[in-house]
Amino acid sequence: MPSRQPVDLVIEARWVLPIAPENSALAGHAVAVSDGRIVALGPAAELRERYAPQEHVVRDAHALLPGFVNAHTRAATVLLRGLPVRAPRLRWLRETLAPAEERWLSPDFVHDGTRLAIAEMLRAGITAFGDAYLFPEEVARAAAAARVRAAVGLPVADATTPWAENATEHLAKCEALWDEYRSHPWVSLHFAPQAPYCVEDATLTRVRRVADELDARIAMQLHETEVEVRDSLARYGRRPLQRLADLGLLRPGFTAINLNRLDESDLELITRTGIACVVCPQSDLRLGDGPSSLAQLVGRGVSVGLGTDGAAGTGALDVLAEARTASLTAHALATGRPALAAQEVMRLATLGGASALGLSHLIGSIEPGKAADLVCIDLSPLACQPDADPFDAIVFAATRQQVSDVWVAGRAAVAEGRLIAFDEQELLALARLWARRVQPGAAA
Amino acid sequence: MPSRQPVDLVIEARWVLPIAPENSALAGHAVAVSDGRIVALGPAAELRERYAPQEHVVRDAHALLPGFVNAHTRAATVLLRGLPVRAPRLRWLRETLAPAEERWLSPDFVHDGTRLAIAEMLRAGITAFGDAYLFPEEVARAAAAARVRAAVGLPVADATTPWAENATEHLAKCEALWDEYRSHPWVSLHFAPQAPYCVEDATLTRVRRVADELDARIAMQLHETEVEVRDSLARYGRRPLQRLADLGLLRPGFTAINLNRLDESDLELITRTGIACVVCPQSDLRLGDGPSSLAQLVGRGVSVGLGTDGAAGTGALDVLAEARTASLTAHALATGRPALAAQEVMRLATLGGASALGLSHLIGSIEPGKAADLVCIDLSPLACQPDADPFDAIVFAATRQQVSDVWVAGRAAVAEGRLIAFDEQELLALARLWARRVQPGAAA
Repeated sequence: MPSRQPVDLVIEARWVLPIAPENSALAGHAVAVSDGRIVALGPAAELRERYAPQEHVVRDAHALLPGFVNAHTRAATVLLRGLPVRAPRLRWLRETLAPAEERWLSPDFVHDGTRLAIAEMLRAGITAFGDAYLFPEEVARAAAAARVRAAVGLPVADATTPWAENATEHLAKCEALWDEYRSHPWVSLHFAPQAPYCVEDATLTRVRRVADELDARIAMQLHETEVEVRDSLARYGRRPLQRLADLGLLRPGFTAINLNRLDESDLELITRTGIACVVCPQSDLRLGDGPSSLAQLVGRGVSVGLGTDGAAGTGALDVLAEARTASLTAHALATGRPALAAQEVMRLATLGGASALGLSHLIGSIEPGKAADLVCIDLSPLACQPDADPFDAIVFAATRQQVSDVWVAGRAAVAEGRLIAFDEQELLALARLWARRVQPGAAA
Repeated sequence: MPSRQPVDLVIEARWVLPIAPENSALAGHAVAVSDGRIVALGPAAELRERYAPQEHVVRDAHALLPGFVNAHTRAATVLLRGLPVRAPRLRWLRETLAPAEERWLSPDFVHDGTRLAIAEMLRAGITAFGDAYLFPEEVARAAAAARVRAAVGLPVADATTPWAENATEHLAKCEALWDEYRSHPWVSLHFAPQAPYCVEDATLTRVRRVADELDARIAMQLHETEVEVRDSLARYGRRPLQRLADLGLLRPGFTAINLNRLDESDLELITRTGIACVVCPQSDLRLGDGPSSLAQLVGRGVSVGLGTDGAAGTGALDVLAEARTASLTAHALATGRPALAAQEVMRLATLGGASALGLSHLIGSIEPGKAADLVCIDLSPLACQPDADPFDAIVFAATRQQVSDVWVAGRAAVAEGRLIAFDEQELLALARLWARRVQPGAAA
C-alpha cells in the first residue's frame, strides 16, 4: 500500500454538495484540504486511503457545502437595526436612515459595525460578502483582521459624503486604497458609484476609465423603485440601465444590484452585455419594492447572486433565509408556478454570489484548487428528517442556527456550533454599547 | 409587609408580548402561573413582591410570548417529507402523495408521525395545532400523551378512505370519538369534511346538522387552486364558498382553510358570516397556489390564523417562518406596499390561530385566566441586536432554534433549548425507521 499523502484536513459528511461542476448531492463523500485550498473531493473511503490528514472531521448527519456568499450588504448598518422600518424605501432612506447616518457615521461606526456583521455572518455560514458603504478602508481592515472574504465597494459620489467632498476626492481616495489592497489574500476592491440618480454622466465616465485602467470591477445599485425609473426617463430620456450601457459601463466585470421593476428591454440588455446581478429578496419585499425579476434572470442564464442588503431594512444577515425567500417568491406573480428549485437557489447563494463579486475563480463551489471556504449544516433536527433531498432539507427546513462548522481558507471560524473566530460576549457588549448610543430610548 | 401568595412559577423576561388585550411589548415584566393558568402579568418588581413562586425563571435577553399556534397541518405527514415536491398542487397530490399514502397510511403511521410532528413543533415553540388527516383517534392519543393542545379534525368523506367506507360510517366514527373527548383537557375535536369538490351537498348538510346538535366547530379546506373554483362553477353554478353558505355551513364556528384565489364576493361573504380563516403562506408559494388574500382578510378584520399545512409540501413545521413569509408576501402583488407589520403577524401566529381552532378563550395571549402556554425566544444572538423592537427582532431576525423555553399549561416541554417532553434520540431513530420504509432508496 503506497504511503498516504499528508494534508491539513479531511472533512467527511453525510452529504457533499459541490454546486459545480455538477450541482448534485453526493452521499458519503469527503473533502481534503491543504494550505487553505481544496485538494480533493471524492468518496470518503477513497480519501481515507489516499490522505493522512492532520485533522479528520466527521459530520455524519450533515451537509458540507461551499460557504454562503452575501453578494450585497452594508455590513456596518447592523448598528442601525431596530430603527423603525417604514416603506416605501425612498422615504425610509430619507426620513429614518439618513438622519441616523448623519449623526453617527464615522470610521469607528463602520469598523465596529462591520466586525459585528462579520461575526453574525460567519455564524450563519457566510464566508464572503460584498459591501457598499462609506469608509471602505474600515470595512477592509475589519475583514482582513477577521480573515473573512470581502469584496469592498469603493464609494464614488458627486455630493459630499462623510468620506470625501466631491467626485475627485472620492476617486483619489479610491485609487489610494486600490494600491494598498491590490493583491490582498482576503480583501478585493471594486468601484461602487452611488445609485444612478445620484451620479452625473461625467463622473460615471471617469469611473469607467479608471476601472478599465486598473482592470477593476464596478458594482452599482440599479433601481429598487418605479420612482427611480421615472426620474431617469424624465432627466435622461432613458431607463437607468440603458443610460449605463450608453456610458459604456455594462460589461462582464459589472454587477447590477437591486433590479426591481425591470422591463423586457432591461432583461435583454442584461443578457446581451453579460453583466452579473444581485437580488435581495427579503429587503425587496419588506420595503415594498415588489418581487424582483429573479425568475426571468435565472431563466435567461444570467449570473445571479443573493444579498441581504443592509440589516436596518432586512433583519438578520442570513443568506439561507434569502435563498428560501428567493425560492418561494420567484414566481409569486405567476400563480400556478411552483417555487424555484432548492438546488437552483443554493447555487445562487454560493456560486452565483461568488460570480457577482468577481470571485468565482476562487470560491463558490467545492472543486479542487478552490479556496477551502466550507460550511457544514446539521440535518439531524427532526424538522430535517428525512433528508432524502438535502437541498430541500436545507432550503425548506433548516435555519442558519444549524450551521455547525465554518472554515475560511481551511481555518475554522465556527466549530460544532460555536463561533471561535470572535469572543461573542465581547461583541455582544459592543453591540449594546452602540445600541445605547444610537437608540438610547430603546436599549434597556 | 403582607405575606406573598404562593404560585407555581414566575417567569421574568426582557420583553413580554401579551398579544391581547394590548398588542404591545412590555419591558421588564413578568408572568405568574399556577395550576397551569396565568395568574398575573405585571412589572417584574411588582410580581416579586406579590408572589412566592416554587420556580422562578429569569430570561433577561428573551421575549416571553404565547405559544405559537399551527392552525392547520397534517401532522403525520412528516413521514412523507423528502418525497419530491412537484407543483402544481393537484398533480402533486395525485401523483406523489396519494400513492405514498395508499401504501403506508395506517394507525401506526399516523400515531408515530404525529408524535414526531409534536416533538418538532414543541421544539419550535408551537404549543397547539389543528390537524386534518385520517385516523384522528391516533392524533388525539398522541397529543394527549404528549400533553400538547390539539384541535383534531374528524374526517368526513363520501368516498372510501382507509378510515371508513362511506359518509355514514365516517360520521358514526366521528360521533363515537366526540363522546370520548368531549371534555378532554388537551384535545378538542371538530368536523373536518374533505375539500368541497370531494363532498356532496347531502353529506355537508348532514355534517351541519350533527355539528349544530353537538355545538361543534367545522373546518374545511376551501380551495388552493383556480381549478377547484372552476369545477365548482361548472358543477354547482357557484363558487365553493357560496355553495357552503347556501348549505348553511358558514357561521362563526366555521373555519375556512387555504383560501387562495378569493374574489370580492368571497371576501364579502367571509366578512359577513364571521367565519375564521387559516392561511398557509409557505405551502401556498412552494406549490404555486399563489399568494393568498391575507392582506385583504386582515384589512377587513377577519380572524386569521397561520398554518404550516403538511410537512411533505412545506418543509419544517415552523410557524415563525410562516409568520415571516406572511409578513413579506402579504402585499407581494401590490408593489410599493411594505411588509405586513411584525406585530400584526405575531398576533396571527398566536391569537389568530387560537381563534381559528376555537380556543381563543383558553390560549393565544398572555392574560390572567388563560392557560400558561408560553414560549421564550432568546434575542441575545448578534443577529437580533439591537432588539429595540422585539416584534421586528423575532419576525425578521430570529429563527425557531432561538426558542429556548416552552411551557404548555405551565409544564415545561422545552427548557434552555432542550426538548424535555421527549427523548430526541429515540424519536430520531423512529424517524429513520420510517424513512427506510417509506423512502428506501433515499435513506443512507
